[in-house]
Amino acid sequence: MVQASSDARDKRFVEDLIDQDDDFDRWYVDVVKGAELADDAPVRGCKVVRPYGYALWENMQASLDRRFKATGVQNAYFPMLIPRSMLEREADHVEGFAPEVAWVTKGGGSELEEPLAIRPTSEAIICTMYAKWVQSYRDLPLLINQWCSVLRWEDRPRAFLRTSEFLWQEGHTCHASAEEATARALQMLEVYRDFVETELAIPVVPGVKSESEKFAGAHRTYTIEAMMGGKRWALQSGTSHDLGDNFGRAFGITFLDSDGQRKHAFSTSWGLSARTIGAIVMVHGDDQGLKLPPRVAPIQVVVVPIWRKEAERDAVEPFVASVLSSLGDNVRVHVDRRDDKTPGFKFNDWELRGVPLRIEVGPRDVQNQQVVVVRRDTREKHIVGVSHLAEVVADLLNQIQRDLYETARTKLHTYTEDVSSLERLYERAFTNAGFSRASWCEDAACEARVKAESRATIRCLPLEQPQEHGLCVVCGRPASVTAIFARAY
Amino acid sequence: MVQASSDARDKRFVEDLIDQDDDFDRWYVDVVKGAELADDAPVRGCKVVRPYGYALWENMQASLDRRFKATGVQNAYFPMLIPRSMLEREADHVEGFAPEVAWVTKGGGSELEEPLAIRPTSEAIICTMYAKWVQSYRDLPLLINQWCSVLRWEDRPRAFLRTSEFLWQEGHTCHASAEEATARALQMLEVYRDFVETELAIPVVPGVKSESEKFAGAHRTYTIEAMMGGKRWALQSGTSHDLGDNFGRAFGITFLDSDGQRKHAFSTSWGLSARTIGAIVMVHGDDQGLKLPPRVAPIQVVVVPIWRKEAERDAVEPFVASVLSSLGDNVRVHVDRRDDKTPGFKFNDWELRGVPLRIEVGPRDVQNQQVVVVRRDTREKHIVGVSHLAEVVADLLNQIQRDLYETARTKLHTYTEDVSSLERLYERAFTNAGFSRASWCEDAACEARVKAESRATIRCLPLEQPQEHGLCVVCGRPASVTAIFARAY
Repeated sequence: MVQASSDARDKRFVEDLIDQDDDFDRWYVDVVKGAELADDAPVRGCKVVRPYGYALWENMQASLDRRFKATGVQNAYFPMLIPRSMLEREADHVEGFAPEVAWVTKGGGSELEEPLAIRPTSEAIICTMYAKWVQSYRDLPLLINQWCSVLRWEDRPRAFLRTSEFLWQEGHTCHASAEEATARALQMLEVYRDFVETELAIPVVPGVKSESEKFAGAHRTYTIEAMMGGKRWALQSGTSHDLGDNFGRAFGITFLDSDGQRKHAFSTSWGLSARTIGAIVMVHGDDQGLKLPPRVAPIQVVVVPIWRKEAERDAVEPFVASVLSSLGDNVRVHVDRRDDKTPGFKFNDWELRGVPLRIEVGPRDVQNQQVVVVRRDTREKHIVGVSHLAEVVADLLNQIQRDLYETARTKLHTYTEDVSSLERLYERAFTNAGFSRASWCEDAACEARVKAESRATIRCLPLEQPQEHGLCVVCGRPASVTAIFARAY
Repeated sequence: MVQASSDARDKRFVEDLIDQDDDFDRWYVDVVKGAELADDAPVRGCKVVRPYGYALWENMQASLDRRFKATGVQNAYFPMLIPRSMLEREADHVEGFAPEVAWVTKGGGSELEEPLAIRPTSEAIICTMYAKWVQSYRDLPLLINQWCSVLRWEDRPRAFLRTSEFLWQEGHTCHASAEEATARALQMLEVYRDFVETELAIPVVPGVKSESEKFAGAHRTYTIEAMMGGKRWALQSGTSHDLGDNFGRAFGITFLDSDGQRKHAFSTSWGLSARTIGAIVMVHGDDQGLKLPPRVAPIQVVVVPIWRKEAERDAVEPFVASVLSSLGDNVRVHVDRRDDKTPGFKFNDWELRGVPLRIEVGPRDVQNQQVVVVRRDTREKHIVGVSHLAEVVADLLNQIQRDLYETARTKLHTYTEDVSSLERLYERAFTNAGFSRASWCEDAACEARVKAESRATIRCLPLEQPQEHGLCVVCGRPASVTAIFARAY
């Protein structure tokens, strides 16, 4: 057995990790790689999602999928290739996506007559099928979701946040009335809000996108916006589109209603992607690395056995077994038995990977029938007797989940400011001060000016609007809405 | 409420369904569409997997994924696009797959310098990453699986069995020795055998592929072969490849071993696809439609409330609720409350969809606190008191699972024959008589002759081989193995 003893080597990676305040972007890249969430791929614009990152995604998927199914949604799978003519049926839609599309032009050894797009999103193929499946009001609503990857060309990838190919889910529903479609779009926004706040411990601002920021082809786009750590930029963390009858008309989705009339169907689509993993990293992480919310963490508790001599090992190992059996099956535990790494290295390594709780089990603990439990988020240590370990661990995991959320919520509130002058809005944008809430007249020219001059954009018009709006922060005319302005990833 | 009463309309679909004996291929296409497992897509070579088919796939995935994880495998996700030069690194591999590849030549608005293949399988991209991740013997074994779709050009698609894009999983492992890689390939073959026999109730013949049938680039390909109903052709239902160090050498996967030597790694890959859904359809189905194995059926029990007058409905509905509560949460139940369909229509519809058990609940049953339980496979009816319904249903579901397997196993044995003359081999191939077991000298010329003259191919050399092999069924020279010959999908 080799036990490295040099402290320098123990702390190697974490010492290499740059502080968030020194370079948040590099910190992000290093943490994602160091924690083995993702790695660079030798394919332009793409990343590999490694097992630890994918296990996190699997937990998120399971939790979100349950929520979808509870609202009556079923999963299905549609082809990833979309003929060009099909993509072109909704004019705004193709205009929005065409520049990002990857085209298949050869297949089975010959040139294709018509190029096929790798789906940048699947409205075109799914609405084509819906036109076939929907005949009567009895066929509605149609509530389908798809877990897949989509491709939108990207030359400067950043793991999870911006890659050519990315993992997501896309829900597509079809309804008999405009009201029902709107209600569904809002229902799914609420599912996203609940999921992101409850499972990922990330507070969000639910709202509506401005016309210039809405989905290509949508009547209205709803969004949840989260504030990241570090530069306090916004990350769009899930969107739900009320498509009105735009796609129903473009793709000829019609049905015979109960009143005997043939009508166009109304539809919605909604998506949440693995970029929310980027949000988990940026919202909760610190200079030591990740802090994963217990509810989705691949490993909730890591057990590190500590021993120097074989005799100690012989005492510790059976005790580890009893620790595991007292923890039971309701917690995701990993025992780090690597014999070429010191305990110090392991502590740093699992902190980097954001495991919520660490349990240290040494020779002295065996005698006292106790262990040391250390929280990743606060580094608080608890000496816990094995007899009530399961209970304490369950409580601590719940507490960590709550505390991560509360800490993030406090930051969101602290760094959101009501702003009434353009000067202050720009100052906040240039100094990465967070979200600015300001009145807006809804003139696209005002929105464009702010973007051009400060790179801040309207993230959303929060669903919760004040009674009065005062004057537009840009032009001084009477405002009709209150908007959140911020830089965004 | 509209209750159609015409018997003709009730049985419409099932009467349209052709008998298996009349045209098995059309029966397959009609059942897959009628049961809404899949539908034609307006994309060349592709099909849409509809919610009912996808729910079946989700159950299969969950069950298979658990088995993988129990052997230490973790999931991950690799890019779907593979640069041409990367695909070309293993010579046999690219030669085998190039004719089926779809090529992306344009992206982000411009021509690409190097075409990108949509993955036909992911050895090339995954081995490229493994070369980076594997440095020391401590990094081995590396056990990763990916759930995704792959694309192999196909102009004449058949749902599940043969489509350009198809859903599958592909496992890729990397090992320090040839023996360990071989053992892993065989271990995963056994996982497939157990999964297909236990969950899908389909008996298989595990074996080795001949040189001409093995995976492009493999040292050795293991397979499980199942016999379909109808024409009794074979369906390759899962393959596991021992890749030797072919990919380790081609992609430069090397590691420093514990003896201080740098060595090439050995690897395996193994895949099972949604074509096994086609096997479920063809092995178990009958003239009324599907028969889904209870363990993977999306709906295990369908409850059909029966009533004519509102007063009856008022009595039946609360009873249905008590039936549901007595069934509990461990069974997947659906209540068919459609009010524009007769009970007769519903019975046929759910038989077509292969739901293992139907529970009929009528006004008289309410009085007697009992229901009628009907098995899909045998159509046996059981009158069951509500008080012990859960127990009876659980027993019946287990019994159906066992009976489906036993019925299929009897067929496999009945239609497998030891053959010692070429004449008999061809006769059996031409009359769709099933599997022929015959001795073979392992000369590729003999294999090719049988294929050219009868279209039967060597499906596998069963793992269980007789002690002696006699003479080659083709050339009469001494044989070295016993092979299964059959037509295949």
